[in-house]
Amino acid sequence: MSTYAITYDDVRDAHDRVRPYVHRTPVLTSAFLDARARRSLFLKCENLQKIGAFKARGATNAVLRLSPEAAAKGVVTHSSGNHAQALALAARIRGITAHIVMPSTALDVKKRAVADYGGIIHECEPTLAARETVAHAVMRETGATFIAPYNHRDIMAGQGTTAIELIEDTEELDALIIPVGGGGLLSGMSIAARSMRPGIRIFAAEPAGADDAARSLEAGRLIPQTSPDTIADGLLTSMGDLTWPVIRDHVEAVITVTDEQIVEAMRFVWERMKLVVEPSGATTVAAALDDRFSALEGISRVGVVLSGGNADLDRLPWIR
Amino acid sequence: MSTYAITYDDVRDAHDRVRPYVHRTPVLTSAFLDARARRSLFLKCENLQKIGAFKARGATNAVLRLSPEAAAKGVVTHSSGNHAQALALAARIRGITAHIVMPSTALDVKKRAVADYGGIIHECEPTLAARETVAHAVMRETGATFIAPYNHRDIMAGQGTTAIELIEDTEELDALIIPVGGGGLLSGMSIAARSMRPGIRIFAAEPAGADDAARSLEAGRLIPQTSPDTIADGLLTSMGDLTWPVIRDHVEAVITVTDEQIVEAMRFVWERMKLVVEPSGATTVAAALDDRFSALEGISRVGVVLSGGNADLDRLPWIR
Repeated sequence: MSTYAITYDDVRDAHDRVRPYVHRTPVLTSAFLDARARRSLFLKCENLQKIGAFKARGATNAVLRLSPEAAAKGVVTHSSGNHAQALALAARIRGITAHIVMPSTALDVKKRAVADYGGIIHECEPTLAARETVAHAVMRETGATFIAPYNHRDIMAGQGTTAIELIEDTEELDALIIPVGGGGLLSGMSIAARSMRPGIRIFAAEPAGADDAARSLEAGRLIPQTSPDTIADGLLTSMGDLTWPVIRDHVEAVITVTDEQIVEAMRFVWERMKLVVEPSGATTVAAALDDRFSALEGISRVGVVLSGGNADLDRLPWIR
Repeated sequence: MSTYAITYDDVRDAHDRVRPYVHRTPVLTSAFLDARARRSLFLKCENLQKIGAFKARGATNAVLRLSPEAAAKGVVTHSSGNHAQALALAARIRGITAHIVMPSTALDVKKRAVADYGGIIHECEPTLAARETVAHAVMRETGATFIAPYNHRDIMAGQGTTAIELIEDTEELDALIIPVGGGGLLSGMSIAARSMRPGIRIFAAEPAGADDAARSLEAGRLIPQTSPDTIADGLLTSMGDLTWPVIRDHVEAVITVTDEQIVEAMRFVWERMKLVVEPSGATTVAAALDDRFSALEGISRVGVVLSGGNADLDRLPWIR
């Protein structure tokens, strides 16, 4: 048996730690979606989470876990996405400084959101090398602790708290569908779900244009993602050495979906469930509606994670 | 003391009756909105209700209250809005026929929604006279029972169930903000809320372009709405003789808001709460953010009804 980066106890502890600071998001259902999926779907609405995504859980857990000495020096990360906002919010909760390294090309709306939560933005060239250089410079100057977005024990445990609530609030789930980018959510939820409900079947949803998890699972080894191409901009990254072993051993299959399927699912969720979900967050719904998933037997009640709602409201993908 | 069309017992009975068929919608909060409103807001998300609006409650109550003999002959209404879908769904729940008289100019998406729920659409000219003529013809031919959209005891009692859940699920509410069009929701909720929590203060939210409730309350008599002009297309109608007396005696003030305020509030709810809300449904949020409401003393916890989410996803009011 492998030893993983986190245990169920870590996720339980994380839940006790973050609960006062994050929403216990509702689990919602839709007769329309159920008819399409030919199953009962239970949507865990992390789009309704603080900062509009599950990332608030992991970042809050990681920041609250810091020693007082480390916390006093602040935290740093590089991200242009939901992890940036999540870390800025978590730092504000603890009353410390968050340094967020963002590419100069990041959307103004994303920079504004980080600034609204009190984060200090450090702009850099839009390359991974530049991000890392600037982040290291901030660490050297300030002594701030780097908080990686997914390949990090406290982040994984924090994201895993999503599974605790989903399983506590929904009876008799047979399966889960969880999106996979770097794998923080998928690995954390897998550890918690399998401990709470040993027989539960775990599926990952992944955009076909960033299908490193599908290829890795097939090959039995971690294959990094190169040049991803998908509308699901939260799922572009490769898995890490902490998340991959959990995923390898817990995930039954990765359902890959096209951008067309993602946009269709996104529209369903907006129109029929009245929920704003971003493309990455709709990937799981697309997977639930996919014929390959529908064809599986023995699954009648499925927990589906709507991971985030930070969509661009000025450019909807179905409006030309 | 006046005798009103319904009592609290009617609303309680309605809740027992409709509960198996409608969602107990979540009550959600937003730190962002609270900061803007300078109060704690508790949003009752009837946009997440079946058919995307609270109207499912009243229509279901009215249809389930019919005698078996009456039910067998079906129901009829004229509406191009949420009541049409709600009645079609309610009829399907009971396994009877719903005849929906709709103007030929109604949007295809609205006709499709009614048809999806199994309603039979009768098209007519887009005038009130034509609607009533066709509805009467259907009643004569089929014996179907006419179910009015708001000025109807069972509809009022059904809509009032929204208050039962909001007050049961939220501690210590000082006030409610409820949208007013025909007044079915406002009157039903007022009766229930004041029985459950006698000191609760009740405010109505109304578009300035259809401010018959504000003018009626000021005049102390029912003044019908003529030529309404507002983006809040669910709030165009006048109050009725059953809803008005309840409103007159229970509502402390009507907060009127401009279409600009409504669109701004709508955008806040989409962007910050990740909820799709229609203009009529955002009217209450606009009122909660209005300076006249903020200036009132002694109110710290406010229940706010997001009444519906049936927005046109192809034409957002903030996209030109």
